[in-house]
Amino acid sequence: MLEKISFSEMGLRVQEPVIVDLMVRSLGNPDILDLAVGFTSNETLPTEEVSRALSLLAEKTASNPEYLQYGTNQGRPLLRELTANMIAGFANEKIPDLSHNNVLITNGSQQALYLAAQVLCNQGDILFVENPTYFVFLELLRGLGITAISMPTKENGRIDFDKLSLVIDELEEKGLKKRIKGAYFVSYFANPSSRSLPLEDKIAIGLTFKNKDLIIPIIEDAAYRNLYYKHPYAACSMLSLPELKDFPILYLGTYTKPLASGMKIGFGYCNHKEWLNKLLYVKGHHDFGSANFSQALIETFLKEGWFPHHLQRQHEHYGRKAASFHQALIDEKFHEMGWKWDKPEGGLMFWLRGPHHLDTSIGSEFCESCIEEGVLYVPGDLNIAERNPKNCIRAAIGTMPDNRLREAVHRLATVAKLFL
Amino acid sequence: MLEKISFSEMGLRVQEPVIVDLMVRSLGNPDILDLAVGFTSNETLPTEEVSRALSLLAEKTASNPEYLQYGTNQGRPLLRELTANMIAGFANEKIPDLSHNNVLITNGSQQALYLAAQVLCNQGDILFVENPTYFVFLELLRGLGITAISMPTKENGRIDFDKLSLVIDELEEKGLKKRIKGAYFVSYFANPSSRSLPLEDKIAIGLTFKNKDLIIPIIEDAAYRNLYYKHPYAACSMLSLPELKDFPILYLGTYTKPLASGMKIGFGYCNHKEWLNKLLYVKGHHDFGSANFSQALIETFLKEGWFPHHLQRQHEHYGRKAASFHQALIDEKFHEMGWKWDKPEGGLMFWLRGPHHLDTSIGSEFCESCIEEGVLYVPGDLNIAERNPKNCIRAAIGTMPDNRLREAVHRLATVAKLFL
Repeated sequence: MLEKISFSEMGLRVQEPVIVDLMVRSLGNPDILDLAVGFTSNETLPTEEVSRALSLLAEKTASNPEYLQYGTNQGRPLLRELTANMIAGFANEKIPDLSHNNVLITNGSQQALYLAAQVLCNQGDILFVENPTYFVFLELLRGLGITAISMPTKENGRIDFDKLSLVIDELEEKGLKKRIKGAYFVSYFANPSSRSLPLEDKIAIGLTFKNKDLIIPIIEDAAYRNLYYKHPYAACSMLSLPELKDFPILYLGTYTKPLASGMKIGFGYCNHKEWLNKLLYVKGHHDFGSANFSQALIETFLKEGWFPHHLQRQHEHYGRKAASFHQALIDEKFHEMGWKWDKPEGGLMFWLRGPHHLDTSIGSEFCESCIEEGVLYVPGDLNIAERNPKNCIRAAIGTMPDNRLREAVHRLATVAKLFL
Repeated sequence: MLEKISFSEMGLRVQEPVIVDLMVRSLGNPDILDLAVGFTSNETLPTEEVSRALSLLAEKTASNPEYLQYGTNQGRPLLRELTANMIAGFANEKIPDLSHNNVLITNGSQQALYLAAQVLCNQGDILFVENPTYFVFLELLRGLGITAISMPTKENGRIDFDKLSLVIDELEEKGLKKRIKGAYFVSYFANPSSRSLPLEDKIAIGLTFKNKDLIIPIIEDAAYRNLYYKHPYAACSMLSLPELKDFPILYLGTYTKPLASGMKIGFGYCNHKEWLNKLLYVKGHHDFGSANFSQALIETFLKEGWFPHHLQRQHEHYGRKAASFHQALIDEKFHEMGWKWDKPEGGLMFWLRGPHHLDTSIGSEFCESCIEEGVLYVPGDLNIAERNPKNCIRAAIGTMPDNRLREAVHRLATVAKLFL
């Protein structure tokens, strides 16, 4: 009889993600169409390039195959250089003192989020997040005992800076202003909203926080920036904005989404030396360096100049899927049923807002009916710090082919009709 | 001018590992011989097998190249099954209810150590460790604010269970017994001691803790178990011992050391469902799954039956190096200079114990002289929770060829002669 364990506070706090429960329950239905899982498409994975990259590596390092050996904690220097240049290569970027020394390579950008939260926040500290925001980030914050607070939004989904100022005032009145340790933005073709953060909003972020004497670390999550359909989003990163030049900024990106999710390689670019060092020290404890092998392959991929062509294939693929999904929503009369959504210009997500009275949360009648009908989604409330409102749906379009995406929309519509 | 950051307690606590400072300072000397870095040998990396594995994967999954796609948080089922069977395949193993459901795949076994510490310990909690023990584990515990306490050892390096009972009594008197949250053992060809934990000691661990009514989680780190030179070490894992059947056990292993460190894939086998789940929940926050690509390659490697042959190559390689290093120590008169060491029967480490008066710590005259002479080692005190004694050295033999290993010993001897 195994002894019961007396777990740490954190051990007690962490629970099975509710989304796992949803997925496990849906396993009974082999025909289920999964709009919940944020995978990329298997169709556009760079299989040939990866094989070619390995051949090149094996050839070039025949006498010293360092690509299969441990690398460094911070990541391969050339990969970091190519990464810094890739970020700086977007239109309108003017990153001061651009250097590969500011880059760290991580196990997907997810790990960088975890590291950032660990070194910034004690239990009970506060991070500002968007509404909606990336739901796994909300989960990891809960695991660490950190409080996420949504920045208020306007009807059009953009941040309401006047109200944000009021929120800061309220926190100050409660003696909580000093617990605000940072702010998190998913700024390009966001998961889940599909929106991008306009330049003027980035500038307003700086002004608003500065006005409140709150020059806090900013995490800019640009995981989907490369996955535009037609054009990159025009706004530069926060790293390049003079209005934000006093702010410690950790800009995150990834090679998992646009290149190969199976390699799980992401990156951070940090303009603040001390913060970067803290991230690296904790990474040294997590794993002392992300897989050097994956890094070497991606480095080769970039160095050989294969990335632009590969991205073009991705852009066309996801652009076509998004158009098809959007059209299916129109054809299935979602507008007429009182639903709203933006047509994404990049990324893998649709953020569907149902009628106000609707409850899409786990265990809701709507959700149960969808499982019965054979379609899965991520309930919108999981993407919102306060778990409210509950009338939205995150639908990911990465994995399924067009015909199945259209069938998924049809099943959603079948259920939506019952909840008018 | 960038704003100063108000870091979390953890962010404040983490510091640059002292060993980094040592390495950076030695960069000035391009001829330095590095006995500090625990890398494996580039000579025995399975370059051909990895290329073949990728070809096989690409061929078999041509229409659905899932190996480049995200995997699951827990790890590939077949890899977990092959891993469970690999552990169970060692002589004398009788793991109750063996199942791949008890396996989790991690970013090296390092990540499993981190996860285990996170879910077991609050700040100020206590973990028992060996003396000496794996120094990166000590560092990560410091980062998390966890107190490591060395279990007392006898002159021959084995755990002194009578004294351990006294240590537990003392902690109880101080009201700290309830803060003891687990015990950590590196049980096969250990880093750094090169020793293995005898069966009778494993049994005594169970008896000693049980006598003190302290049935705490045990972490058994078997990272070097596959790297024996002639024969696997005979003792079974703690998972198989009836005397430990009440104890929650997390057994750790890795494919980095014996297969390819660049892939950074390790694993844990946990006999305690709730503990395993907690580890998985936090892993979901860290990265929601280790690189599926590396996992798929290693899975292929195992499935195709290439592992035994590859291991044999490793055994011969490291056995030869260890014999050569051992002989060099004898030839350079280390015994006569009052040094002691065990001749390893596996692993990558020599644990050299100098004369009692010697101080090998960072900044010591001995250490500085070694850097000047062109040889680096890990100071022994870094491998000991209490940073005492200071007369030992961890020498890793994985990377350098024989002639350089012998030259490194010669340089060490040159310095040792000055400190008789």
